[in-house]
Amino acid sequence: MYVKGENQIFRTSLKKFLEKEAYPYYDEWEAERIIPRDFWRKMGSNGFLAPHLNEEYGGMETDFGFSVILIEELERVGAGLIGVSNHNDIVVPYLDTFGSEEQKKRWLPGCITGEKITAIAMTEPGTGSDLANIKTKAIRDGDHYIVNGEKTFITNGIHADLVVVACKTSTNEGHKGISLLVVEQGTKGFTKGKTLNKIGLHCQDTAELIFEDAKVPASNLLGEEGRGFYYLMEKLQQERLVVSIQAQAAAEKMLELTVDYVKERSAFGQTISKFQNTQFKIAKLATEIELGRTFLDKLIVNHMENKQIVKEVSMAKWWVTEMTKRVAAQCIQLFGGYGYMEEYEIARRYRDAPVSAIYAGTNEIMKLIIAKKMTL
Amino acid sequence: MYVKGENQIFRTSLKKFLEKEAYPYYDEWEAERIIPRDFWRKMGSNGFLAPHLNEEYGGMETDFGFSVILIEELERVGAGLIGVSNHNDIVVPYLDTFGSEEQKKRWLPGCITGEKITAIAMTEPGTGSDLANIKTKAIRDGDHYIVNGEKTFITNGIHADLVVVACKTSTNEGHKGISLLVVEQGTKGFTKGKTLNKIGLHCQDTAELIFEDAKVPASNLLGEEGRGFYYLMEKLQQERLVVSIQAQAAAEKMLELTVDYVKERSAFGQTISKFQNTQFKIAKLATEIELGRTFLDKLIVNHMENKQIVKEVSMAKWWVTEMTKRVAAQCIQLFGGYGYMEEYEIARRYRDAPVSAIYAGTNEIMKLIIAKKMTL
Amino acid sequence: MYVKGENQIFRTSLKKFLEKEAYPYYDEWEAERIIPRDFWRKMGSNGFLAPHLNEEYGGMETDFGFSVILIEELERVGAGLIGVSNHNDIVVPYLDTFGSEEQKKRWLPGCITGEKITAIAMTEPGTGSDLANIKTKAIRDGDHYIVNGEKTFITNGIHADLVVVACKTSTNEGHKGISLLVVEQGTKGFTKGKTLNKIGLHCQDTAELIFEDAKVPASNLLGEEGRGFYYLMEKLQQERLVVSIQAQAAAEKMLELTVDYVKERSAFGQTISKFQNTQFKIAKLATEIELGRTFLDKLIVNHMENKQIVKEVSMAKWWVTEMTKRVAAQCIQLFGGYGYMEEYEIARRYRDAPVSAIYAGTNEIMKLIIAKKMTL
Amino acid sequence: MYVKGENQIFRTSLKKFLEKEAYPYYDEWEAERIIPRDFWRKMGSNGFLAPHLNEEYGGMETDFGFSVILIEELERVGAGLIGVSNHNDIVVPYLDTFGSEEQKKRWLPGCITGEKITAIAMTEPGTGSDLANIKTKAIRDGDHYIVNGEKTFITNGIHADLVVVACKTSTNEGHKGISLLVVEQGTKGFTKGKTLNKIGLHCQDTAELIFEDAKVPASNLLGEEGRGFYYLMEKLQQERLVVSIQAQAAAEKMLELTVDYVKERSAFGQTISKFQNTQFKIAKLATEIELGRTFLDKLIVNHMENKQIVKEVSMAKWWVTEMTKRVAAQCIQLFGGYGYMEEYEIARRYRDAPVSAIYAGTNEIMKLIIAKKMTL
Repeated sequence: MYVKGENQIFRTSLKKFLEKEAYPYYDEWEAERIIPRDFWRKMGSNGFLAPHLNEEYGGMETDFGFSVILIEELERVGAGLIGVSNHNDIVVPYLDTFGSEEQKKRWLPGCITGEKITAIAMTEPGTGSDLANIKTKAIRDGDHYIVNGEKTFITNGIHADLVVVACKTSTNEGHKGISLLVVEQGTKGFTKGKTLNKIGLHCQDTAELIFEDAKVPASNLLGEEGRGFYYLMEKLQQERLVVSIQAQAAAEKMLELTVDYVKERSAFGQTISKFQNTQFKIAKLATEIELGRTFLDKLIVNHMENKQIVKEVSMAKWWVTEMTKRVAAQCIQLFGGYGYMEEYEIARRYRDAPVSAIYAGTNEIMKLIIAKKMTL
Repeated sequence: MYVKGENQIFRTSLKKFLEKEAYPYYDEWEAERIIPRDFWRKMGSNGFLAPHLNEEYGGMETDFGFSVILIEELERVGAGLIGVSNHNDIVVPYLDTFGSEEQKKRWLPGCITGEKITAIAMTEPGTGSDLANIKTKAIRDGDHYIVNGEKTFITNGIHADLVVVACKTSTNEGHKGISLLVVEQGTKGFTKGKTLNKIGLHCQDTAELIFEDAKVPASNLLGEEGRGFYYLMEKLQQERLVVSIQAQAAAEKMLELTVDYVKERSAFGQTISKFQNTQFKIAKLATEIELGRTFLDKLIVNHMENKQIVKEVSMAKWWVTEMTKRVAAQCIQLFGGYGYMEEYEIARRYRDAPVSAIYAGTNEIMKLIIAKKMTL
Repeated sequence: MYVKGENQIFRTSLKKFLEKEAYPYYDEWEAERIIPRDFWRKMGSNGFLAPHLNEEYGGMETDFGFSVILIEELERVGAGLIGVSNHNDIVVPYLDTFGSEEQKKRWLPGCITGEKITAIAMTEPGTGSDLANIKTKAIRDGDHYIVNGEKTFITNGIHADLVVVACKTSTNEGHKGISLLVVEQGTKGFTKGKTLNKIGLHCQDTAELIFEDAKVPASNLLGEEGRGFYYLMEKLQQERLVVSIQAQAAAEKMLELTVDYVKERSAFGQTISKFQNTQFKIAKLATEIELGRTFLDKLIVNHMENKQIVKEVSMAKWWVTEMTKRVAAQCIQLFGGYGYMEEYEIARRYRDAPVSAIYAGTNEIMKLIIAKKMTL
Repeated sequence: MYVKGENQIFRTSLKKFLEKEAYPYYDEWEAERIIPRDFWRKMGSNGFLAPHLNEEYGGMETDFGFSVILIEELERVGAGLIGVSNHNDIVVPYLDTFGSEEQKKRWLPGCITGEKITAIAMTEPGTGSDLANIKTKAIRDGDHYIVNGEKTFITNGIHADLVVVACKTSTNEGHKGISLLVVEQGTKGFTKGKTLNKIGLHCQDTAELIFEDAKVPASNLLGEEGRGFYYLMEKLQQERLVVSIQAQAAAEKMLELTVDYVKERSAFGQTISKFQNTQFKIAKLATEIELGRTFLDKLIVNHMENKQIVKEVSMAKWWVTEMTKRVAAQCIQLFGGYGYMEEYEIARRYRDAPVSAIYAGTNEIMKLIIAKKMTL
């Protein structure tokens, strides 16, 4: 479908790049709990950051099919690279869609070169997925906003040069008072907590962000005041599709690792792959992975055709991420004791898997959306 | 995909036909444990029997997309109508593909009018899915074969005018001695047991067939002697695809029935559809059904393009039929006590569901095929 | 535990009785959709009806351990016999606990001989498990109550000579207006619908009961007016324990049938029991059955010591009945095509299983009770 | 059952000890990837190491009920303490049962004081649970054995002063050539690999052991030559029971943590515990935990009465450890993003859980044992 011709060349050159610049260093990055900025810059100079942007900012105006390739190949290196896709396909699109021409000229070129790493800050300690109840406030004061509040679980939180912050600009109840402000690194009153220590995604720099009378220029308001909630809703379809594709690629990688393992490893006088239990388990996992892939391929095509597929993407989000968790749990079991050893890639994949069922809207939220769309 | 334009018109006229000729009588047929031949003839005279056959035999040379519509709409009436699709898309294709010109002229016109109902006889008491070990023997004697043996679980067993019988024509070990003979109703030595009493599919006439020195003309041999196993293998892809489509259509119908029910029925002061448990369960089932549908739509297209998709069809067969069983079990639970009452369609659907995981190769066989295709 | 010494003798003589009087006729009863009254009377004359009652009414003052044996052995014949345990251990206890001395003398002797078969009527069309919202009304008029309303899903509904009817005797909101009236067969204005046609439990006579200005003597009020809800609550622990024991016994019987089958039946050159898939599946089912049995044995002991184990019994009710459904679904699959044939006992067991997750409070209700007891 | 009177006092004093000596340091130990020997010595001086041993060696001759308390309370601190129970209830019993009087006097007192930490070495790289195929060889040479081979996944591998090594002392096929040798720290030719880096159990010192012409005194042979396999079999019942109890205690702790969390945390305007989805999930987990606990309590009693319960213990091993994995996966989900943060205990519990399904015989092996005991 989306993977042919020109795309295939793109995938090949990306793979080569990652084999040289990412795979050999991944364990090191995990140990250091961060991906070096240098890798971001290399991604940028090779055209792998936000290639979908307009040529006038330095982009290549690629379609979402290229993003899919980037998401998949980065995930195949390791789930700790999700921050890059988060930048490319989740945050930068906010700047691109809702930014004024002036803002776009100011920010987008750096997003393409890797000079400007981006993050989006929605979740607050204690609110979880409940966006309408965020507490972070931005009070207009002349040509600035004074921002106070805390955000947590922010992907790229440490590296971020530009943070799209969801905050309340009015005391209006619920959704209507939410605006999006771009807070820049170096803003007075804006500080970053230390990297959060997670079960997995070790090289992913997730952090808390603190705003104490942070003085943000009014010219950093994204779009209109009070429209933030609707902007966020508009972008959720792609955000959740991105997460689903990541989880799918992880599942595919885990199955490959496991099939290789059971074919080479022996026990009780035969290769493990010959046991009927192994065969049935792997046939089951392979089937679920094939179903997930087929479903996502269709959603990707529909998304590229700008169809409204919120219900279907919500379905993909919960089902694929749950499937990935099942794949992880059953694959480490097939590795026996080795599955529990960090030396084996499957071990890290197991630790990385569960978060996909939580971020970008928990799977419980996904089911509520589906129920709503079915008018239950 | 396959459902558009001309197909849509076909579906509409088929639906109208079934609303008049099938829906009102279905419960009666279930009680009588058989579908009247008259319904078969009406199907035939309306062009709904084997429309894919060549015009010279009376067919309309439709593609498999029309078969899909027939399979789905018949299943929506009730799973007890699978015998019709069994005739159309499983047995008749044997005659069409492997029959000689003479045989085709002799048999196919009646298959289209409904004068000749067909069946295929593989399974024997005690062999299950293990085709290589069948015991039914056909010994050549002049211009006849003398057939001895028993077959069981034969769909359309009672009605069948033409039975494609898998039998051993030589003492060769395993697959190589298997041939296909067409045994006609009225053949001396060929008798039918009584309708087997099943958990569900009550109007489906499943039966045992007994061959005691049955004298079958040698001119009824289908294709070549000893090639029967390979003929059967060749047709399995479509057979299993048909079963998957039936199971999928059943799941879709059950969800529709259940969504309607939970929206109208109240408990503890609100409609059942408002309980979070109901919403989560239905969101889950709807997702699985959507995944199944998407997967099948892709396989249907590939099958129509004559692709070899044995692995994928095996995946569909086990996954979709297991999914249908889950849907059935959870839907009757959502109906509460009413789900257990035959008065409600969901009750019969629950009884009908489990056999799809068994026939056309058990789901265990499907997993072995997948494992083999993955070279485990 | 509860099964020793004297109990064991009781079980042996009960088994002998059932082998003579129940097993040979069970299929016939299923076909006739009812158990003959004559069987009830034989049960009575052999001391198998409500043996726990006081000697002065004809009982034997047995403890609940004997009831457990009766419940298990009746279930082993077929789930269609649950009506007997319903009489013994669910309805008769209401008469015994809440009845006046006069009432007990009037009713209990017949409950022991089998002359009086009992039923309890809670559920109404449209209310399900929501007791507080029942609509059946009993208006006091001199020394009678005038009863109007409908009840459904009533076990022993056709045979019932005495029906304990939950009805509203005052317009008080919710629980407080509920009373229990014993309505006798032959009461003017009290009629029985026809036997409800169920997926399974075919010989169980489940019916609707209709009250149209039924004139019930005030002396048939059970206990005090307005206390009905509390009486029902008090008896739920035993009711749900009874259902759990039935489901457990069914699971045990299904596993026995299946183990026998896979040991004797061959496929692909070996007995089915030798396939690793069969072994793993049966090991799994056997484990779950063992866990259920161990749990129930403990609850039975605690129940006999009059402990409050509402939470634990709610746990047993949902878990054991779900387990039984899993056992049923997986066992018919292990039987292959034969599992779908009514000729094999496993087929009927599959049809009987799912109702246990619905009656005596749906499994959803059980989870709400557990959550409440955990003060969530 | 086993928890009363004297035992309760033991539990209380143990809890106090752990609150002072273990809980406050646990995170530190995890970071250091080892438990300090000093903690072992404190355990010893407080009577918490192998208290079941005979008084003549310094023990207290406690029954297995005390071991259960130790296993549970250590697990409640953290699964990384399993090494202590491994010493107490798995390895030391080998020395005690199969050691000569001389050996026992030499080794057991140190096992009680904590001077001698023990390990058992069965698994080899590449053999997994397949004991009959171990490659480590011990060749008799005068009054020594010359040992060559490698062992892996050895619990207490770094600390171990005494290692019970399963090795082949003859070229006999399969089981019959296996003997147990006690190899002491400091033995020439015996070296320890570095701590294996595991997904979880971070303070547990799991290691590889290497034997290169290690010279072990013949007087360190445990029991008779060639009997090792049978000795190992004899002890497996307790070993697997210990692992089951650990997994059960972990599940109970995780549920406690989660119940506390959902009761205090809010989302969408109410505490999470009020959502029906939360209530149903927790009711489900609580039920499974209660079933596991009831089953284990019964097995503990039977084990203490020296009953042969290999089948039942195998059932407990696989079911309880699978249950614990389900509990872990669903609990972190209920914590939302916090469940993925190492700061929350539930995060570490999730990483610790899966290994219990692998060690002490994988769950696949457990099912094979059950199938064998059922003579499938």
